[in-house]
Amino acid sequence: MNATTIRDRAAIVGIGQTAFGKSLGRSEYDMALEAILAACADAGLAPRDIDGAVRYDMETTDEENLLAALGNPELGWFASSAWGGGGAASVLVLAATAIAAGLASAVLVYRSRARGKQSAYGPGAHQGGRYWERLGSAPLTGLNKWHVPHGLVAAFQEMAMIAMRHRIEYGTTDDQYAEVAVAFRSHAARNPHAVMRAPITIAEHHASRMISDPLRLLDCCLETDGAVALLVTSAERARDLRQPPAYILAGAMAAGGHHIRLSSFYERERRHDGAPRAARRLWGMAGVGPGDIEVACFYDFFTPLVIMALEDYGFAPPGEGGPFVERGGLAWPDGRLPSNTNGGQLSEAFIHGFNNTVEAVRQIRGTSTAQVAGCELAFVSGGNTDPTGAVILRR
Amino acid sequence: MNATTIRDRAAIVGIGQTAFGKSLGRSEYDMALEAILAACADAGLAPRDIDGAVRYDMETTDEENLLAALGNPELGWFASSAWGGGGAASVLVLAATAIAAGLASAVLVYRSRARGKQSAYGPGAHQGGRYWERLGSAPLTGLNKWHVPHGLVAAFQEMAMIAMRHRIEYGTTDDQYAEVAVAFRSHAARNPHAVMRAPITIAEHHASRMISDPLRLLDCCLETDGAVALLVTSAERARDLRQPPAYILAGAMAAGGHHIRLSSFYERERRHDGAPRAARRLWGMAGVGPGDIEVACFYDFFTPLVIMALEDYGFAPPGEGGPFVERGGLAWPDGRLPSNTNGGQLSEAFIHGFNNTVEAVRQIRGTSTAQVAGCELAFVSGGNTDPTGAVILRR
Repeated sequence: MNATTIRDRAAIVGIGQTAFGKSLGRSEYDMALEAILAACADAGLAPRDIDGAVRYDMETTDEENLLAALGNPELGWFASSAWGGGGAASVLVLAATAIAAGLASAVLVYRSRARGKQSAYGPGAHQGGRYWERLGSAPLTGLNKWHVPHGLVAAFQEMAMIAMRHRIEYGTTDDQYAEVAVAFRSHAARNPHAVMRAPITIAEHHASRMISDPLRLLDCCLETDGAVALLVTSAERARDLRQPPAYILAGAMAAGGHHIRLSSFYERERRHDGAPRAARRLWGMAGVGPGDIEVACFYDFFTPLVIMALEDYGFAPPGEGGPFVERGGLAWPDGRLPSNTNGGQLSEAFIHGFNNTVEAVRQIRGTSTAQVAGCELAFVSGGNTDPTGAVILRR
Repeated sequence: MNATTIRDRAAIVGIGQTAFGKSLGRSEYDMALEAILAACADAGLAPRDIDGAVRYDMETTDEENLLAALGNPELGWFASSAWGGGGAASVLVLAATAIAAGLASAVLVYRSRARGKQSAYGPGAHQGGRYWERLGSAPLTGLNKWHVPHGLVAAFQEMAMIAMRHRIEYGTTDDQYAEVAVAFRSHAARNPHAVMRAPITIAEHHASRMISDPLRLLDCCLETDGAVALLVTSAERARDLRQPPAYILAGAMAAGGHHIRLSSFYERERRHDGAPRAARRLWGMAGVGPGDIEVACFYDFFTPLVIMALEDYGFAPPGEGGPFVERGGLAWPDGRLPSNTNGGQLSEAFIHGFNNTVEAVRQIRGTSTAQVAGCELAFVSGGNTDPTGAVILRR
């Protein structure tokens, strides 16, 4: 009668994706189907074997159409994750929860985005520009009333505030930001799926235009088109399928900071925010520690958030994320923790975190284009701030 | 390592609600808070004890605001249910899943609606009227392309099609529809929370205006304002709390019919739709059968759907739901299966199914205003058509 956990109960057995690009001219529905069928073929499962589904609640693909096109698999468990990219790892926690509770045996997890043509960072992207336009004439509700009238409207502005706080507290530098961007781009250069593969230098990072101080263009993730699908089964079933399973050793979700959209402005220190909270649960369940992890795929929507995630999840002490990066800690093959070895969302594609999970699975399978030899343990996180989550995959 | 289930692992330990009404003039946020605080007080739990949350993905209450006002409880698991009122029982399945997997110990489940002023059934509610207006100039996408241009736009129209099919197959009658409406209204007459308490007759049902053949006004659920909150804990923890627990003996979700919005137009017979599928799983898990259930709270958005739910969940054989109702089967206190003893969504309020769950908990506690003496087992279902779910509560 005592509670079980999700520890080691589920595994990612199938990965599928479309091409990624700035403007593919395809519908999200069309791309989702391609990715799902690819994941099924990868796993050796038929679409009709799917009996559970997890997605973001902001997913816009018409799920009825999607299920019909897949032959109407009979679902016994389905849920969605709130609040966007913070849920990039939480969707796997949800899938593992259903499997651990015995309510599903093959869970589809997917995301499709046709956003490549919509620049989030172009001129006029903030004050005076498209974000104001998007608000339209609708009344401001809830906590938005406190910051939108002052021009704090877009995600990159909120992240800039958090990044600036980290600079003030710890002296985080532009060079450290650049190290993240340069390392991930160098990984992307090896990855034929990556949208941005031309190598960049620290000087080029510094010369890129300021988006929202201290964030420059090369600190920001891409906007791209593409879809990703993952199939999660029970650990037992995973053993009989086509690919080496990527077991979900542990997973955690967290929310509860004094959260306004993407930021926890009231938190002077970060230990109450989502990522540090998720970290406590994650390592408690995992039975391994940050020092055991061989590859990480951080939710890299902005470079400073990778530095903060290193600290939040215990890969570096508070304030030591910047120096960790500056020592080449994220770089493949020689860094302490090769990270986002696909190029991440900064250079491969922005599929709202899901493409990073695919890369972590590839590392566990030994098929990455920047493979860490003999990788046994990989880490994947959602966005740092509330709500968020993280998982550890093991071979 | 074998899969557990959610059987008897969780219990509803707190219920809270606002007043219900046609136009309360309050925000959904304000009402949600009142209901949540009432549920906490009912259970003897503090808001900070909440560590999980489940809602509809269409819930519009600002969850960040809500959590902040509750003192930022630290959440370790949160998910939402797709596609509206089909999820009325599924939200409890999701909460029980989290508890069974050990990822949460006190899960908040809530719904708040300020919709009482928006008539779904008024003149012009369909062709030529507000539903067309709501569509605006947005392009029709997905399966909507196939039925919206022909005027099949609104929920009541889709349900009318399903109801008509049932009439053709089984000879279901207006009198049988009326029996559902009259029985539930007689229950509402005893319930001080109910919005519609004036008794109605079969003749008054027949005289009410046609909305979409064969549905008359008195076949349709209300539109109301109000909020409901439920607190779900582990079965172990439930024993030490303030109220007699309503254990979730079993729960099931289902999707996968060839589903277009609310309807499964392609299903000539109903055995492939959500409710019959959920029924198979539900009774398989429960270890009891339909004959053991003493009270039911069906998702009563339209009277014929209650008749169909009787059949879908095995309370009556196919085609025998109408005769079951005509024999007074749903009526308190003497019917075989007193149902929606709060008045249901036809007469108490439409809180998207959540108020029916509160009533089922009251029956288990022995506190309903139409109490079934010694009630041990209560049944709650979401909408009949894909996707849906149902739970069985036990004392």
